[in-house]
Amino acid sequence: MKRYSEMSKDELLKLKNQLEAEFEDVKGKGLKLDMSRGKPAAEQLDLGKELLDIVNGESDLKAENGLDTRNYGGPEGIPEAKALMAEMVGTKPENVIVFGNSSLNVMFDTVSRAMTHGIMGNTPWAKLDHFKFLCPAPGYDRHFRVTEYFGAELVTVPMLEDGPDMDMVEKLVSEDDSIKGIWCVPKYSNPTGTVYSDEVVRRFANLKPAAKDFRIFWDNAYCVHDLYEDNQPQILDILSECEKAGNPDMVFEFASTSKVSFAGGGVSMMAASPANLAEVKKHMSTQTIGHDKINQLRHARYFKNMDGIKAHMMKHAASLRPKFEAVLNVLESDLGGLGIGTWTKPLGGYFISFDAMEGCAKAIVAKAKEAGLVMTGAGATYPYGNDPKDSNIRIAPSYPTPEELAVAGKVFVLSVKLVSVDKLLQEA
Amino acid sequence: MKRYSEMSKDELLKLKNQLEAEFEDVKGKGLKLDMSRGKPAAEQLDLGKELLDIVNGESDLKAENGLDTRNYGGPEGIPEAKALMAEMVGTKPENVIVFGNSSLNVMFDTVSRAMTHGIMGNTPWAKLDHFKFLCPAPGYDRHFRVTEYFGAELVTVPMLEDGPDMDMVEKLVSEDDSIKGIWCVPKYSNPTGTVYSDEVVRRFANLKPAAKDFRIFWDNAYCVHDLYEDNQPQILDILSECEKAGNPDMVFEFASTSKVSFAGGGVSMMAASPANLAEVKKHMSTQTIGHDKINQLRHARYFKNMDGIKAHMMKHAASLRPKFEAVLNVLESDLGGLGIGTWTKPLGGYFISFDAMEGCAKAIVAKAKEAGLVMTGAGATYPYGNDPKDSNIRIAPSYPTPEELAVAGKVFVLSVKLVSVDKLLQEA
Repeated sequence: MKRYSEMSKDELLKLKNQLEAEFEDVKGKGLKLDMSRGKPAAEQLDLGKELLDIVNGESDLKAENGLDTRNYGGPEGIPEAKALMAEMVGTKPENVIVFGNSSLNVMFDTVSRAMTHGIMGNTPWAKLDHFKFLCPAPGYDRHFRVTEYFGAELVTVPMLEDGPDMDMVEKLVSEDDSIKGIWCVPKYSNPTGTVYSDEVVRRFANLKPAAKDFRIFWDNAYCVHDLYEDNQPQILDILSECEKAGNPDMVFEFASTSKVSFAGGGVSMMAASPANLAEVKKHMSTQTIGHDKINQLRHARYFKNMDGIKAHMMKHAASLRPKFEAVLNVLESDLGGLGIGTWTKPLGGYFISFDAMEGCAKAIVAKAKEAGLVMTGAGATYPYGNDPKDSNIRIAPSYPTPEELAVAGKVFVLSVKLVSVDKLLQEA
Repeated sequence: MKRYSEMSKDELLKLKNQLEAEFEDVKGKGLKLDMSRGKPAAEQLDLGKELLDIVNGESDLKAENGLDTRNYGGPEGIPEAKALMAEMVGTKPENVIVFGNSSLNVMFDTVSRAMTHGIMGNTPWAKLDHFKFLCPAPGYDRHFRVTEYFGAELVTVPMLEDGPDMDMVEKLVSEDDSIKGIWCVPKYSNPTGTVYSDEVVRRFANLKPAAKDFRIFWDNAYCVHDLYEDNQPQILDILSECEKAGNPDMVFEFASTSKVSFAGGGVSMMAASPANLAEVKKHMSTQTIGHDKINQLRHARYFKNMDGIKAHMMKHAASLRPKFEAVLNVLESDLGGLGIGTWTKPLGGYFISFDAMEGCAKAIVAKAKEAGLVMTGAGATYPYGNDPKDSNIRIAPSYPTPEELAVAGKVFVLSVKLVSVDKLLQEA
């Protein structure tokens, strides 16, 4: 197939007519498809159904430390849950607090505390005239929104092959003490699937921030979310790298079992240095008497350890792989060689990241919607929902069936083609 | 028995010798007793064990509205949980958001949001030079601590027989726009067991606060926590009273099942006007994708409705009544007529409130500790932990067994007697 950019105006016009006919055809089918959010499918949630049986009315509900999980107390989480969650992200249990079901909520609270009380004696961010957060993009819209909500100026940092542009990160944080943090998804980054290289992790650990209360918000959301058994990249443990670099307090790490057990009923965690954790626990003592320890116990007894988690994640992978492949196959077969888009082929996580020709993403998403396919809003992967190139589109293949995805993929590539042709015709 | 205040110095000295001997005797027993916190006993937690079976691996986990409780979404809670929690506090489901396991956390977040973002367009409290919260006392230490944590000046309002001193509340809130809220536990108030009269509730609903963002924090923590089947006082529904009074937005109501199902694994709720809820939901959309809906489903399916909750609470009452009676019996038999203390005889809730002679509470708690009995710290029931009369002691009888309570009661009354004799001798 010829590259679109090499087509004459006549060829493009002819192609356009043909694509429009195809599109009208698809539109007529009244499809209702959704590739917008990284939600596990019901089939994946079924994988963990025995989690709901492991603790029952006849169970001994005491944690390893003797704490009755049904009662008040234990704000840092029960020991067996701390051990499990620590192993999951590759740190020590004493570096961990286990929370409720939402790691987003834990991140939100962490920023909120910094707003009202400051970090380690530094000025509360709410009392600053201005503060900034670095946002590697394409990235996770909900991260960006948390800091936007609290009034931070969001500064875009380009996402490169092996992580954020560290030259830029190093320069910015060392020069500007109003930069208080950076959002990171170090493994299978949302949406690009990027895995931070060892060099990137080490450069993070060795940052010399101008702000004493600068923190890396290290959302290890996809730490165990591999798609393949035989190709599982590992990232360095940021906590020990920071410690080695003499920056033990510079990072807050987050994770959850939302995409391991249940997206609505998992457990979440924070890992950090002893000094950070001591401060968080002090604040938490006013906030709550403790999180749901029964659910922590369920998770600890069901998964047992990292082997248990890994085995379980391979079942998720078996469900997810055909879905990723369904989308990737359509992209390859229908867009390969046309020069109107590039896309990632991730080894894990929940997304395929698609880059259209500049100025086309919004129109593609709108076009797909016309035919009944909901995509993540174009621009969502950038701060303020504003992709300066209007190019990136996040594809979330987890929720629909492979059959639906094959159809959705067709709608998507048709939308990409149509919008690209229009764009080229405008420029011709 | 003679009133201590009518005893001569000689009589007091003789009594003191005798009490000290008794105390040494008790001390020698090496007791380890705890009447400090309102924790349910294991026996009470066992009552709800079937709650853990009602949702299992074979269950249909869809909520009434078709939402898969295992997946993301539904930040306001599933319909059946909203209905249950609404009925529990006597309001409509559309006035309710169901949260995670901790209502304290919901209250904390409510204050935190007011700090960083303000309420309904008013100045965020963090940006004010100064703001105040009214604290009816004796009251709940964790309430007071939340607002102290956020920098509010805590203003004590005396707790009277039928609720807070409303003359004072009305005057203060109408004159001072820096007063942003008041903490209330309207039924079986912690620790006095006070039940707000209809008049008090109506006076609350008809407040004319100077501050537009003044809110009543109505913690209906003990709404269904009656001790007796045949004597269950009802309070008016604050939301509808506020609506009638033309103040629909003036109240945030809170409750949880922490002392209905599990103190560590229940569900919590907020009830408020449509305008308040809309604002809360807007904020929540940044904070979380939703709370644990599986646990909400468990609660809704297990308790079904108010009849289910009421029947369950009578089982709790059967466990708690002998405990309250064990303490009340010792107080009556050993302190009755001595004029050295008064105490409440609550119809529900978790506490007995004891008022010692002025200046004696701290010494009594310290004395009891010498003999191995831990009480709530004296002063805890007042803002800043400072009881100006050093008189109030909170007794929490729920956690120990009735047998332990009989012993603990003896240690307590002995401590009261000893400290009172000392006080009278000093004054003699």
